[in-house]
Amino acid sequence: MKSLLRLRRKKEAYSLGAPPGIEHIIELSAPPKPQSIQYELIEFGEGTHAISTLEDLSKFLAEPESINAPFRWLNIVGLHPHVVAELQEVYKIHPLIAEDIVSPNQRSKVEEYDDCVFCQIKMLRLQNEQVFTEQVSILLLGNTMITFQEYAGDVWDNVRKRIQTKSSRFQSRGTIYLFYALIDAIVDHLFPVIDAYQLLIEQLENDLSQNPDQAHQKKIHQLRKEIVILIRLLWSTRDIINQLLRIDTTHIPKSIRPYFKDVYDHCIQVIDTLELSKEEVNNLHDLYTSSVSNRMNEVMKVLTLLTSLFVPATFLAGIYGMNFQHMPELGWKYSYIIFWGMCIAMITGMLLFFRRKRWF
Amino acid sequence: MKSLLRLRRKKEAYSLGAPPGIEHIIELSAPPKPQSIQYELIEFGEGTHAISTLEDLSKFLAEPESINAPFRWLNIVGLHPHVVAELQEVYKIHPLIAEDIVSPNQRSKVEEYDDCVFCQIKMLRLQNEQVFTEQVSILLLGNTMITFQEYAGDVWDNVRKRIQTKSSRFQSRGTIYLFYALIDAIVDHLFPVIDAYQLLIEQLENDLSQNPDQAHQKKIHQLRKEIVILIRLLWSTRDIINQLLRIDTTHIPKSIRPYFKDVYDHCIQVIDTLELSKEEVNNLHDLYTSSVSNRMNEVMKVLTLLTSLFVPATFLAGIYGMNFQHMPELGWKYSYIIFWGMCIAMITGMLLFFRRKRWF
Amino acid sequence: MKSLLRLRRKKEAYSLGAPPGIEHIIELSAPPKPQSIQYELIEFGEGTHAISTLEDLSKFLAEPESINAPFRWLNIVGLHPHVVAELQEVYKIHPLIAEDIVSPNQRSKVEEYDDCVFCQIKMLRLQNEQVFTEQVSILLLGNTMITFQEYAGDVWDNVRKRIQTKSSRFQSRGTIYLFYALIDAIVDHLFPVIDAYQLLIEQLENDLSQNPDQAHQKKIHQLRKEIVILIRLLWSTRDIINQLLRIDTTHIPKSIRPYFKDVYDHCIQVIDTLELSKEEVNNLHDLYTSSVSNRMNEVMKVLTLLTSLFVPATFLAGIYGMNFQHMPELGWKYSYIIFWGMCIAMITGMLLFFRRKRWF
Amino acid sequence: MKSLLRLRRKKEAYSLGAPPGIEHIIELSAPPKPQSIQYELIEFGEGTHAISTLEDLSKFLAEPESINAPFRWLNIVGLHPHVVAELQEVYKIHPLIAEDIVSPNQRSKVEEYDDCVFCQIKMLRLQNEQVFTEQVSILLLGNTMITFQEYAGDVWDNVRKRIQTKSSRFQSRGTIYLFYALIDAIVDHLFPVIDAYQLLIEQLENDLSQNPDQAHQKKIHQLRKEIVILIRLLWSTRDIINQLLRIDTTHIPKSIRPYFKDVYDHCIQVIDTLELSKEEVNNLHDLYTSSVSNRMNEVMKVLTLLTSLFVPATFLAGIYGMNFQHMPELGWKYSYIIFWGMCIAMITGMLLFFRRKRWF
Amino acid sequence: MKSLLRLRRKKEAYSLGAPPGIEHIIELSAPPKPQSIQYELIEFGEGTHAISTLEDLSKFLAEPESINAPFRWLNIVGLHPHVVAELQEVYKIHPLIAEDIVSPNQRSKVEEYDDCVFCQIKMLRLQNEQVFTEQVSILLLGNTMITFQEYAGDVWDNVRKRIQTKSSRFQSRGTIYLFYALIDAIVDHLFPVIDAYQLLIEQLENDLSQNPDQAHQKKIHQLRKEIVILIRLLWSTRDIINQLLRIDTTHIPKSIRPYFKDVYDHCIQVIDTLELSKEEVNNLHDLYTSSVSNRMNEVMKVLTLLTSLFVPATFLAGIYGMNFQHMPELGWKYSYIIFWGMCIAMITGMLLFFRRKRWF
Repeated sequence: MKSLLRLRRKKEAYSLGAPPGIEHIIELSAPPKPQSIQYELIEFGEGTHAISTLEDLSKFLAEPESINAPFRWLNIVGLHPHVVAELQEVYKIHPLIAEDIVSPNQRSKVEEYDDCVFCQIKMLRLQNEQVFTEQVSILLLGNTMITFQEYAGDVWDNVRKRIQTKSSRFQSRGTIYLFYALIDAIVDHLFPVIDAYQLLIEQLENDLSQNPDQAHQKKIHQLRKEIVILIRLLWSTRDIINQLLRIDTTHIPKSIRPYFKDVYDHCIQVIDTLELSKEEVNNLHDLYTSSVSNRMNEVMKVLTLLTSLFVPATFLAGIYGMNFQHMPELGWKYSYIIFWGMCIAMITGMLLFFRRKRWF
Repeated sequence: MKSLLRLRRKKEAYSLGAPPGIEHIIELSAPPKPQSIQYELIEFGEGTHAISTLEDLSKFLAEPESINAPFRWLNIVGLHPHVVAELQEVYKIHPLIAEDIVSPNQRSKVEEYDDCVFCQIKMLRLQNEQVFTEQVSILLLGNTMITFQEYAGDVWDNVRKRIQTKSSRFQSRGTIYLFYALIDAIVDHLFPVIDAYQLLIEQLENDLSQNPDQAHQKKIHQLRKEIVILIRLLWSTRDIINQLLRIDTTHIPKSIRPYFKDVYDHCIQVIDTLELSKEEVNNLHDLYTSSVSNRMNEVMKVLTLLTSLFVPATFLAGIYGMNFQHMPELGWKYSYIIFWGMCIAMITGMLLFFRRKRWF
Repeated sequence: MKSLLRLRRKKEAYSLGAPPGIEHIIELSAPPKPQSIQYELIEFGEGTHAISTLEDLSKFLAEPESINAPFRWLNIVGLHPHVVAELQEVYKIHPLIAEDIVSPNQRSKVEEYDDCVFCQIKMLRLQNEQVFTEQVSILLLGNTMITFQEYAGDVWDNVRKRIQTKSSRFQSRGTIYLFYALIDAIVDHLFPVIDAYQLLIEQLENDLSQNPDQAHQKKIHQLRKEIVILIRLLWSTRDIINQLLRIDTTHIPKSIRPYFKDVYDHCIQVIDTLELSKEEVNNLHDLYTSSVSNRMNEVMKVLTLLTSLFVPATFLAGIYGMNFQHMPELGWKYSYIIFWGMCIAMITGMLLFFRRKRWF
Repeated sequence: MKSLLRLRRKKEAYSLGAPPGIEHIIELSAPPKPQSIQYELIEFGEGTHAISTLEDLSKFLAEPESINAPFRWLNIVGLHPHVVAELQEVYKIHPLIAEDIVSPNQRSKVEEYDDCVFCQIKMLRLQNEQVFTEQVSILLLGNTMITFQEYAGDVWDNVRKRIQTKSSRFQSRGTIYLFYALIDAIVDHLFPVIDAYQLLIEQLENDLSQNPDQAHQKKIHQLRKEIVILIRLLWSTRDIINQLLRIDTTHIPKSIRPYFKDVYDHCIQVIDTLELSKEEVNNLHDLYTSSVSNRMNEVMKVLTLLTSLFVPATFLAGIYGMNFQHMPELGWKYSYIIFWGMCIAMITGMLLFFRRKRWF
Repeated sequence: MKSLLRLRRKKEAYSLGAPPGIEHIIELSAPPKPQSIQYELIEFGEGTHAISTLEDLSKFLAEPESINAPFRWLNIVGLHPHVVAELQEVYKIHPLIAEDIVSPNQRSKVEEYDDCVFCQIKMLRLQNEQVFTEQVSILLLGNTMITFQEYAGDVWDNVRKRIQTKSSRFQSRGTIYLFYALIDAIVDHLFPVIDAYQLLIEQLENDLSQNPDQAHQKKIHQLRKEIVILIRLLWSTRDIINQLLRIDTTHIPKSIRPYFKDVYDHCIQVIDTLELSKEEVNNLHDLYTSSVSNRMNEVMKVLTLLTSLFVPATFLAGIYGMNFQHMPELGWKYSYIIFWGMCIAMITGMLLFFRRKRWF
């Protein structure tokens, strides 16, 4: 079976036992090529919004605070230590955050610092019948929000549209509301993913009960593996949303909490459905095992039965093929007819007996 | 097996990453057709009660507070965003509540707001040997209670009767007591549901031990699936009743708590029984597997035994069917009799040996 | 297997969604027949004690407080709503308690009210190799204690004797100590029950290893079911004793707590032993499966081996039974002897080979 | 398999529902025979220590406080209610403690009273390749410590030696330190026990992979049972050490806590190892099942293969054994040679085909 | 399969029930040989650092406080009670710590004392495709840190390099930061270990699906065992890092906590991955079982089918080999042709029937 889940885990080549921070990574890596990194800047506020694509960070970093509009969101596609280092200098980002941003295989986390909230979360996206996973880093620095993705393509197109909608809540509530909206979009896009798995399971269940073969076993194995990975992945997502619910109110005002509670409920719903799917896949395994053994039993029973039917008759034929000189039956006139009669009677009798015992 | 459980989950077509609230849903949906939505209004209080069916909400909304009687309960069948929007405007319902009401696949929840309690709970109803599940939303706004159902038909007929009974506790305690009575009725109607499952399991167990076949395996698979879904569904019901027990006393006075404690105990009892049923179904799977393999073993043993019985005799017959010129036995007078004697002795001996070893 | 456990669950016919309390039950039920209910009254105190059997409650209710002796215990056998209603009126029992008393399938519970403690607990009794379960309601109203049983026969005979013993602790400590003694007796009588199960398991284990058959599988299935039910039943008993340990000291003075702690320890010990039994029964299932398949393998191996032994020899005999005109061996003088030699050599060779491979 | 574990559980014959305390037990039991109970008294303190064997308790009870030395430890082998009653009178032991001491099947426990600490713990001892379990009761009464064992022989010989060592910590810290030392010795002696089980598992694993037979299954069953019992037994030991860590400082001074923490760590380590052993035994079951079925498959495959090889050739031989008058092949000169050629070709072809399919 | 995991557990020969502390161990052990123990001393501070190898501890102990540089780290390879005793005397180490240091099979732990923090942790190292485990003891005594290893070779080479790097955080933050760096390095080196296991599992999965044999079962058994041991080992590592997070701030200042939080996250990530691996290995077992039985079924089906095909034809041939005098078919001209036709028709018919039933 083609795997549904694409984990895209890069092997990291950073040296073990290295110091925290990104200095040692920068030394090892060439400066980024001009086009390899994309910067998208959205500036927004009451009645105003603007989207622009930057060539580099120089202009952005020249104004550490938002000037054109009350709030701004910088989305960076491509994780490069040089870029993070530039931002780290201006925004005094903690070395551990900087290191986490450029390490794509991190565990999801939320961290509160005095002047910022840092959140790493897995983004799942169903595209062309494949589930792509990606680590997204969100850095909330007051009225400026910076997000980091590794690959182009995300689940936030609808958010972008809504920012530009007149009198949307974004324009009044700013980056905090944007923070919620981004995570909400990530959790919302989990639903198509679990629907895809649900569909796969239903197809498999139908296939199985009709004609079980070895390939199904591998599909079940694969599905089970993927669902277990997904569940563990979403456990960490649930944990970070739960942490966001209990975060200090200086970072996330109380009026936003019902929104995060809503996201949390959705996340729990996704996990519940996946746990159900896992149980179903386990049941499928039982169903497969029992279907296979049923079919096998059916075949063996019929074949063995067929052999058994002819064994006594063959023995009888063997007897009258013997060359003893004194075998009176050989000379009788109706021996042959009687022999046939006996064979047919024996076989019919056995068939009736087997049928009565419900053996076939 | 015909499934006992009817989940009636509609695919939702709302766009992913949409803003919270129902504005974007209203835009997409036509206004409701006149007869597609039913409004039932019950006004009650000390010594007074009246049931009426409304055509639309205009009159109801004109009097946001109950006038004819101290308390009133509006039950709306059919989830339509336009209707919810009308109510939202008058009663200042939080956009997240409004969105939850029109989304039928929500996780059960209880939410406290400053001026209202919002509760979503699964209602299960056994009808014509089918268990219908439905999401019910209950909105407690002081002396006004509004409930939303998706489908006509509910478990509250007895509550309606009791409201109209003279000097019932409803008339003195009002909507709070009604709130309890509705949830109590929902939990009470779980008992026939679990009895239905218990009955199915007992039937299956009887069938199984008599004549196990492949269909039983599918029934077990199906039952296990449904019971697991039910348990998870009731976990959320249990959680919200537990939350209601700890809700702020401004919303639910302390004197009502023993009643909710009673409902909670019933809910736990239902879940306990279902967990037992789940274990029983798992045991049925073991029983099925072992019954099938027992039957198969029985068949194969007898058939193989039958073949074995004739193999040596057939070999002997083969020998005296050989055409060697020098086979003294062929000319002896009693050879044929002796041969039959040997065959019968061999077969009888083997039968006795097998019987002694308890092989059949 | 005859089931050890007798659950005696009556189907309740009360209408779903009915109001709490027993008014609606009383309406449906005829007044109790004179002899159908038994009342036993024990009055006791420092140096005094008296046992009497009442005909009805009229005299008892005429004196709501104990007069003849400091303390009194009324034990009622037979749950009838009319009787409970009489008591409810005099002692102002909460409608929920009244309803619970007449509902025999309740979950075990302890409830504290301002002027009474109400406790429902399962009583298990081993009698004639059957375990009878019954719901017992205990109502502690200051110096008066009322207990309700559904069926005649209980585990409290020893308690009755001790009450009448001179200078027993009952006479000085009164109904509180009686409350403890009743629950202690219930938990003490669990030990013979678990011993009975332990014995059954040991017998089954012995039977199994000697001659496993299908009946054992059903016994295992039955035992597993009963033990799981028992464990869940005792979980609720444990929970209520735990609650009693933490109950308000106005109801249960601190000096009684070590006694309840002791009962709690016994209850935990019973549950631990039952959990062990459950694991053992699960292991028995494994043992059964493997014993059955072992026996089956043994049989099939020997039978198949027997067939294999004769197959080559039969082929050889078939060859010399052919009627080709040019078969030089047919005319040789010692062909027949040689043929027998070859057959015996072949069969012996195969036997040796199989034995060396330890195939039989 | 000879069981490693000796549980030595006596059936208790005390009447159910009896009052707490030992009065009712004393009535039923004869006074102890002179030699059936052993008393060992160790008196110790700064620079002084003395061991003596008492004949009865009269002298000991005459001096309720230690006189010869600051501290004293009385070890009583043999549980007799008369002896406990004598002590109870002098030391005012709570009736529940007295009853627990003479009941050998108690659950392990620690109980704090105003003037004493009472502890019951399981002592395991590996002797002659058998693990003996025994309930030990420790009663800490200020500077006097009394311990009760049921059987002679314990794990405290090393402690006795250390008490008599000059300037050992016992002499300065007294009975509290002795209390720790006794429990430490009990936990220390668990290590040889788990090593014995580890050894058994390793032997079994080796045996299994070489030549699996039915006896292994029973050994696995037995081992699993014993390990589960041991784990549950040690859970209670862990719980009581944990309770000792949190006991009131008037009984156990803070400076002793690190020592109990150390014992606790050892106990956890033992349990962890046993849980690992349990998982290993479970894996052994899988390994056994799969080894047995592998061997069986091997045998059946070869035997069935052998039969299949000769079936077509036997059919061919049967054909040329037919007596039709018009069978041209019968008269040909080289028929017989060709026949042999065909048979050999067929069998060889099948063998090659089977080999290529890796069927043997 | 060669085991990946090397546990290197020495059997300890210390007497059971011995007093805490190392006096009794010193008595039993000879003084260390000169070269058997290696001492490495690193002195560091703002702008200064020096590495030296000591011959013995005399010079080090002469200066209990660091003199040459603000901080110093002494790493001792080889656990010898004499060495620990020397340190114990100078630094007043608690006897329980001293005993733990020389006992290599301790459970991982963190302990806070007034003047020191003591930590024992398992160090895993992947070397030459083997995972070596070792107990490391870290003793933080203010500005002096002493570490104890049993074997030469560790995971700290990178830390040593970084200490000597100019203006590294070590030089400013001292031994506290070093403490973090050592544990960070230990956790970082777990990643290659779990990657090695992941690789083994993937190889096994590939092998399995192609050609399952008995050896795979043993590999799965071995892998499962090792992963379970590893998980339990890392649970204790997680626990001690968690304890370090909550340790008193006098020992570990608050500014270091984010670093430990980071290590904790990595540790959880490792455990999560291993738990996933464990589930995968369990699934591999299912896959193996089902692959083996599939192959076996395939073989048996074909062989039995082959036998069945020839059974009726052989019976027919047997009939015409009979010697009855009156068998009209024997004399017919086309009997033989017709016989062949019938045989071929029968076999073809059965083949078509079996194919249509998808039996092969």
